Amino acid sequence: MATNQEEVSLIGAVGSPFVCRIQIALKLKGIEYKFVQEDLANKSDLLLKYNPVHKKVPVFVHNEKPISESLVIIEYIDETWKQNPILPSDPYKKALARFWSKVIDDKIAAPFFRAVFAVNDEKAREKNIEESSEALHFLENELKEKFFGGEEIDFVDIAAVFIAFWIPLVQEVAGFELFTPEKFPKLYNWSQEFLNHSIVKELVPPREPLFVYFKAKYDSLVSASI
Amino acid sequence: MATNQEEVSLIGAVGSPFVCRIQIALKLKGIEYKFVQEDLANKSDLLLKYNPVHKKVPVFVHNEKPISESLVIIEYIDETWKQNPILPSDPYKKALARFWSKVIDDKIAAPFFRAVFAVNDEKAREKNIEESSEALHFLENELKEKFFGGEEIDFVDIAAVFIAFWIPLVQEVAGFELFTPEKFPKLYNWSQEFLNHSIVKELVPPREPLFVYFKAKYDSLVSASI
Repeated sequence: MATNQEEVSLIGAVGSPFVCRIQIALKLKGIEYKFVQEDLANKSDLLLKYNPVHKKVPVFVHNEKPISESLVIIEYIDETWKQNPILPSDPYKKALARFWSKVIDDKIAAPFFRAVFAVNDEKAREKNIEESSEALHFLENELKEKFFGGEEIDFVDIAAVFIAFWIPLVQEVAGFELFTPEKFPKLYNWSQEFLNHSIVKELVPPREPLFVYFKAKYDSLVSASI
Repeated sequence: MATNQEEVSLIGAVGSPFVCRIQIALKLKGIEYKFVQEDLANKSDLLLKYNPVHKKVPVFVHNEKPISESLVIIEYIDETWKQNPILPSDPYKKALARFWSKVIDDKIAAPFFRAVFAVNDEKAREKNIEESSEALHFLENELKEKFFGGEEIDFVDIAAVFIAFWIPLVQEVAGFELFTPEKFPKLYNWSQEFLNHSIVKELVPPREPLFVYFKAKYDSLVSASI
């Protein structure tokens, strides 16, 4: 638990999967913190000062020291507050957790976003959905227990909140099917368990307002591309 | 030092910056290992079995357990063999080392490769060189001492072997200037110190044969795109 002397804050935005990862990690650890809402359409001087390289949320600030990149932040949180470990302690299991979390970002989320933004390039959309789908199949085969962390959620589960909550929402907005119960039965069951986890269900944003917000953004992207 | 019971091998290819990172890390630790040369034009069953997701080198194999992704491998090596630490022990300094190493891969190396491959798209080439250059400027400002690790090389220095050796070589092949002593005086001085480090200078590949090899590959890429 953060002591009274410590200042812990999270610069974030509601609706960001990468911010949600940090919220889950902090809740698992029982760390109290201040949530600083960022307006991504009009970025604050604080965000630009603390994350000049990416100019993105989340930025985690511990006693005035800023850290960016969600997976880097989670490792810092796990090393700073030891209760309820998020990464495995065994070096090989830890390496695998880092590897699969990186796969989620680089081989699942990145091509997924490229597919969403390829609004008038069907070929590019298909290619990127295929890339994301292939990596999802590898991840599906990694799932051996209730969670990636076994009986408890760990680093890979937290990274995969993107798959459990954001992919189903955004693929519906963009009108394609990547992640379905038929194609990925084990991952789909995992996603239901994960979203019903007592900590996670409090922290994922309400679906309907976010759907309306993303749909409006997507429709304006389509209009602009015609 | 690896004991006689341990089997340590590195599946790699001469000329890969990501493989060279692992070679430097293993040499710093004093770990003996078997180098398994991979033919990237005709990938081995072993590589495809051990790294089915990326099908790329390096793959590090410790007692038959494979690990991929160069930065993940270095963290595993550092956690498994404690002598001559590569990452800082302080959690905040460790987070910064992870952050900057990720910047090198995502914001310097990735756009650099996109610039190289944009052989007949001058606009795309310029955009990517600009992105890489902007991140190099941020990294230049991070350099406060002889090495990123202070008096000794550490995680960020090892990640940045890509900048010290590969960028100067490949930008000459592709005929553009990104990393020069005039534009990045501190990083350039660092690169000279780093390449003259007793361990590093033995492990970077001989420049001339690699230049000839990359030039032939690049020329065939240009021919194919006309």
